[in-house]
Amino acid sequence: MDEKLDLFYNRRSVRKYADRPVSDQQIEQLLKAAMAAPTAMNLKPWEFVVVRDADQLEKLRKISPFSNINAPCAIVVCGNLGVFKRPLMERFWVQDCSAATENLLLAATAFGLGSLWCGLYPIKGMIKSVSQHLELPGSVIPLALVFVGYGAEEKPARTQYDANKIFRERYSDKW
Amino acid sequence: MDEKLDLFYNRRSVRKYADRPVSDQQIEQLLKAAMAAPTAMNLKPWEFVVVRDADQLEKLRKISPFSNINAPCAIVVCGNLGVFKRPLMERFWVQDCSAATENLLLAATAFGLGSLWCGLYPIKGMIKSVSQHLELPGSVIPLALVFVGYGAEEKPARTQYDANKIFRERYSDKW
Repeated sequence: MDEKLDLFYNRRSVRKYADRPVSDQQIEQLLKAAMAAPTAMNLKPWEFVVVRDADQLEKLRKISPFSNINAPCAIVVCGNLGVFKRPLMERFWVQDCSAATENLLLAATAFGLGSLWCGLYPIKGMIKSVSQHLELPGSVIPLALVFVGYGAEEKPARTQYDANKIFRERYSDKW
Repeated sequence: MDEKLDLFYNRRSVRKYADRPVSDQQIEQLLKAAMAAPTAMNLKPWEFVVVRDADQLEKLRKISPFSNINAPCAIVVCGNLGVFKRPLMERFWVQDCSAATENLLLAATAFGLGSLWCGLYPIKGMIKSVSQHLELPGSVIPLALVFVGYGAEEKPARTQYDANKIFRERYSDKW
């Protein structure tokens, strides 16, 4: 029964990558998974900028000490707030795009690729830098910088399951 | 190759449920997957309140027209902002808990269960109602109300993949 959890346990944050490219077809598989995530009112506010050009990757690596990663591909997951026709409809865009990002990471794992999620939103400086490098319009907010590639480090599968984080019916009753 | 995407495509929002319970053991499997998600700085701000009591479920069903769902189990995914010892550390809690929620939904799919993600945060009225019903302390914010159970409706597998949402190197260059 537990083998169904392998995919989740095998997804680890990979920070060292092999010098081996990722193809258009591979990227499309990952984005098919990403765009299968649920979104509030099915509004699908996500957009994805795929970066493999050496100069562009170098710019992204420099936006923070945590993004100095040698992967051959970065996918910037963005929310396009322009899809929301009425105020208040955009309140779930971070959740929607985060679910898509998690699907992307898990699909990378399924296809034998490593991945790393670097948070951008709501850090203003990183949003500004990435928006400039990718020439994003003002209505498109970069949420996450995801590195993808063949891993050059091994990490054991794991969960961080902790029964102390679970409650039964109400917060006073521990699991 | 595409069969690796089946799990993502098979996860659909299920709104009709069979009258068949979900066991502690099943819930633990789902939460093992949830707690395998990545979190910023590995701070794991998540907490989960599992609701199966009829009166408690009835209260949750009444918080919005979208939550009037007949599932035998609800799992409220919360962020515990008390885990953050310094200001600014909590900036990614919504992303962290959303990734865990998406893992929970996918694991439900893997185990033959249906699920539905109802957004709570940042809707003040729903946060207040759910916090009262679950007796949450002020530092614990309910992010998502997830219904889980055996589905009583069939939906086809799908992605909502759209190449128009993908860009190459920068926003001006379509995929």
